[in-house]
Amino acid sequence: MNPTIELIHEHRSIRKYTDDAVPHAHILEAMRAGQMAATSSAVQPYCVIRVTDDEKRQRIADLSGPQQKVRDCGAFFVICADLRKHMLIVDRAGEDYNASLEAFLVGTIDASLFAQNFTLAFESLGYGTCYIGGIRNDLPLLDRLLNLPEGVCPLYGLCVGVPDESPSSRPRLDAEAMLFENTYPTDDETLAAIDRYDEVYTKYLTDRGAQPSTWSAAIAKKFSYASRSGLGDYYASKGANLC
Amino acid sequence: MNPTIELIHEHRSIRKYTDDAVPHAHILEAMRAGQMAATSSAVQPYCVIRVTDDEKRQRIADLSGPQQKVRDCGAFFVICADLRKHMLIVDRAGEDYNASLEAFLVGTIDASLFAQNFTLAFESLGYGTCYIGGIRNDLPLLDRLLNLPEGVCPLYGLCVGVPDESPSSRPRLDAEAMLFENTYPTDDETLAAIDRYDEVYTKYLTDRGAQPSTWSAAIAKKFSYASRSGLGDYYASKGANLC
Repeated sequence: MNPTIELIHEHRSIRKYTDDAVPHAHILEAMRAGQMAATSSAVQPYCVIRVTDDEKRQRIADLSGPQQKVRDCGAFFVICADLRKHMLIVDRAGEDYNASLEAFLVGTIDASLFAQNFTLAFESLGYGTCYIGGIRNDLPLLDRLLNLPEGVCPLYGLCVGVPDESPSSRPRLDAEAMLFENTYPTDDETLAAIDRYDEVYTKYLTDRGAQPSTWSAAIAKKFSYASRSGLGDYYASKGANLC
Repeated sequence: MNPTIELIHEHRSIRKYTDDAVPHAHILEAMRAGQMAATSSAVQPYCVIRVTDDEKRQRIADLSGPQQKVRDCGAFFVICADLRKHMLIVDRAGEDYNASLEAFLVGTIDASLFAQNFTLAFESLGYGTCYIGGIRNDLPLLDRLLNLPEGVCPLYGLCVGVPDESPSSRPRLDAEAMLFENTYPTDDETLAAIDRYDEVYTKYLTDRGAQPSTWSAAIAKKFSYASRSGLGDYYASKGANLC
């Protein structure tokens, strides 16, 4: 393993942080590294909003779960698909902005390629990180707290800080169960791979002293009821086109 | 700079590759590194289809542009949001799968966090890479070529191989024009940052002997007409819910 692959394997989501701040110089270094990720036709359709206001941080921590780490970590960021800068350019050119699913999709993809570089850069500097999907619990409230204009579409949060815990790594599906050749496997093959993973997952939970269960039991529960309805209406209200 | 941040800064999209193959052991190493990226509630909503069939590779190269590098690179992958494994689990549990924008969004985000780790792992092993958004030119045809079942939603391709060129790096927007505090800047501030970037971008084109133009001219053109319409219908036909 080379140093980068080693660093990647050391990743754990960190949920407890010390009181140490994250110096602005480190944030800029991680930004510049993040921005080196590929971006479709150089459109750079994302932005990052660092939340430093204590009251806003607490409100976001509350709406995200509550998840107190959003308030307590060294630095908290909201990663957004940013269609606004393109809207402003098109408007200045006297044209009409043409909203498309393609634009929103590229915004989401390129923001996430950026975010993973951003995260790894922080981890390479010794910080821990945790993505916060919980901000999608109430995007309209988040939007009001940050006063986001049309075209700025928040996707998820990111906690960064000095780790104050050292959790074990949760096992992933086997690589062979995620990588296929020329087509997708049969349902029987997929379910057999899931059964093998369930055994690994149950052992992981048992070894940690947690209530033993299976991955597929968690998945069956999670995807059999509606999750965060209203997201589409919210993004549409920001000028995104998801159809 | 540490070795990971240095590697990140060495990234260039590579469009010309030697004939060298990419050994399967390297592909598995990059997969395992990719899978270490964070994934929301461990749902792992993505998969990778490596295309090794020569005729399919050529058809995908054609529909993507044409972009001959899709055929000529050492290894070509299609990165997909994978809702199917969750659908199968929910079905086996006797429940109804509840499609949601949240599920598709998490599929797109987590696939892309994976993809950036996957890409960096390849780059750390000495390979060059290029994301291929062009597969979205004709997803229904790609779908038939790879015989993808319901729930498997291709997002973009990825070329990997030994570089046979050494391009310069395209300048990015200034980090300060992408990172904001507590809110988004005013339109005047955004447009002023765009003007500054236009100067840097024009100089970059001029230095390379390319036709001088500005970033904002390219953006104004790109976003004032419809792009890849029909994407939403395609993803809906795969069982995704984008509303």
